[in-house]
Amino acid sequence: MIELSLIGIGPGNPRALSLQAIDAMRAQDVIAIPRKGAAKDDLAELRRAICAEHLRGTETRIVEFDLPVRDAAAPDYRAGVEAWHDAIALCWQRVLTDALPGGGKAGFLVWGDPALYDSTLRIARRLPGPVSVRVIPGITAIAALTAGHGIALNTVGGSFTVTTGRRLREDGWPEGAETVVVMLDGDCAFRAIAPEGVSIWWSAFAGMEGEIRLSGPLSETAPRIVATRAEARARHGWIMDIYLLRRDAA
Amino acid sequence: MIELSLIGIGPGNPRALSLQAIDAMRAQDVIAIPRKGAAKDDLAELRRAICAEHLRGTETRIVEFDLPVRDAAAPDYRAGVEAWHDAIALCWQRVLTDALPGGGKAGFLVWGDPALYDSTLRIARRLPGPVSVRVIPGITAIAALTAGHGIALNTVGGSFTVTTGRRLREDGWPEGAETVVVMLDGDCAFRAIAPEGVSIWWSAFAGMEGEIRLSGPLSETAPRIVATRAEARARHGWIMDIYLLRRDAA
Ligand SMILES: C[S@@+](CC[C@H](N)C(=O)[O-])C[C@H]1O[C@@H](n2cnc3c(N)ncnc32)[C@H](O)[C@@H]1O
Ligand SMILES: C[S@@+](CC[C@H](N)C(=O)[O-])C[C@H]1O[C@@H](n2cnc3c(N)ncnc32)[C@H](O)[C@@H]1O
Repeated sequence: MIELSLIGIGPGNPRALSLQAIDAMRAQDVIAIPRKGAAKDDLAELRRAICAEHLRGTETRIVEFDLPVRDAAAPDYRAGVEAWHDAIALCWQRVLTDALPGGGKAGFLVWGDPALYDSTLRIARRLPGPVSVRVIPGITAIAALTAGHGIALNTVGGSFTVTTGRRLREDGWPEGAETVVVMLDGDCAFRAIAPEGVSIWWSAFAGMEGEIRLSGPLSETAPRIVATRAEARARHGWIMDIYLLRRDAA
Repeated sequence: MIELSLIGIGPGNPRALSLQAIDAMRAQDVIAIPRKGAAKDDLAELRRAICAEHLRGTETRIVEFDLPVRDAAAPDYRAGVEAWHDAIALCWQRVLTDALPGGGKAGFLVWGDPALYDSTLRIARRLPGPVSVRVIPGITAIAALTAGHGIALNTVGGSFTVTTGRRLREDGWPEGAETVVVMLDGDCAFRAIAPEGVSIWWSAFAGMEGEIRLSGPLSETAPRIVATRAEARARHGWIMDIYLLRRDAA
């Protein structure tokens, strides 16, 4: 029997870790850390640093492993993702069987909160054999975005929609929405919507060292974000960004 | 000059506190704890316990104060909320001037994440005089809901909408939404929507001692939630609940 814990570690600041997450880390036999190729080395490095700091005095071992890479060229997005998750589940199974041949407790450190645009939970559900899954919630990139700008997520009593760059580009502004948060946007999809009467709050590396924030009316802020993002990405080697769009009150 | 910190403490489990939140608490001159009347005594009690545990060895003082109560009978919801926020801002100002006549650092412990359906940020923005505001993000009730059920918030690449019980009752299922999270629902608003093809994941006291979870097809789960909620509320004296609704895949 393998007891899997998917441990939310927050969106990149090692101090965003919760006490619960630390308790869970320290209770594991093994913490598995994926390496995802050069661009994501920094992310593996953060996980290593978190382990070095919080596993002191425990017997918890760290196992690093290489993850298969998604075929970004797959014509059908959902089918491509399904195949990729299958491949990762196989890979996890190998890692877990090697590390815990007699069963035991294994933890994965999940960026942000494990429920939010993350595949770890779906992959865990694909593991064959006797596996239990426990989730430790984490601080999300959404909370880091709003905290950095000092803004509320919702208007008073209002609703909000969270979506992806792909969806915003393909479907446009979500019907009836007042506030829209966009994640997983590799290509500044805010350029695809009509900017009149819309404001944007944008953060890259939210809550992390080197956080960059820009905000204002979308019309004039969009080009500044495009330029700033390109520059920061080139300098840093990779980028993670998120933004909130809101229709100005009439 | 008053430096205000709005510190997200997570949705009720003292172990949901982040290291960042603890750092921020310990850096304050004063932590202000509102008492909100009998029903909310437990919430003040949690804040007291958190302070007792994490302020040890600091000079940080705790100041308790009584909050004005919202006029729930006000005919116009938004106007009623505005008036209430004004009254709270006045009350804060008094508390802060008394506690820190020469200025200094004051912290408020905010349930969950300060950006999510919480008035603290809006009230802070109403304070007159030289006040700076800093927000420390927290784990939300949404993350506690999904962690407890071990479910993802979004479908693969899908969007989701977060709304209130009032909105769900008045506006119905949000146009085009696949996944809907409902908060601030005092009256089981899920009964107002057509249950066919919809599943629900419901939690009361998510992430806290006494967490209750129910899930399944909305048609058969709704009456169980209504009964369980009424019983738990009567037993406990108050209740906090949240749920996720999802249209079943076609
Ligand atoms: C695969 S999702 C993971 C989200 C994560 N589970 C969470 O709870 O925030 C990655 C996306 O989250 C957002 N993101 C995560 N961390 C971020 C950060 N520190 N700053 C800005 N955006 C971030 C970006 O939109 C990025 O494309
Ligand atoms: C005033 S809002 C505050 C939300 C908080 N800022 C957050 O980030 O979760 C209160 C609502 O949050 C939800 N909530 C907060 N804590 C909860 C918990 N532990 N269990 C279930 N629902 C909770 C309920 O829907 C409740 O009506």
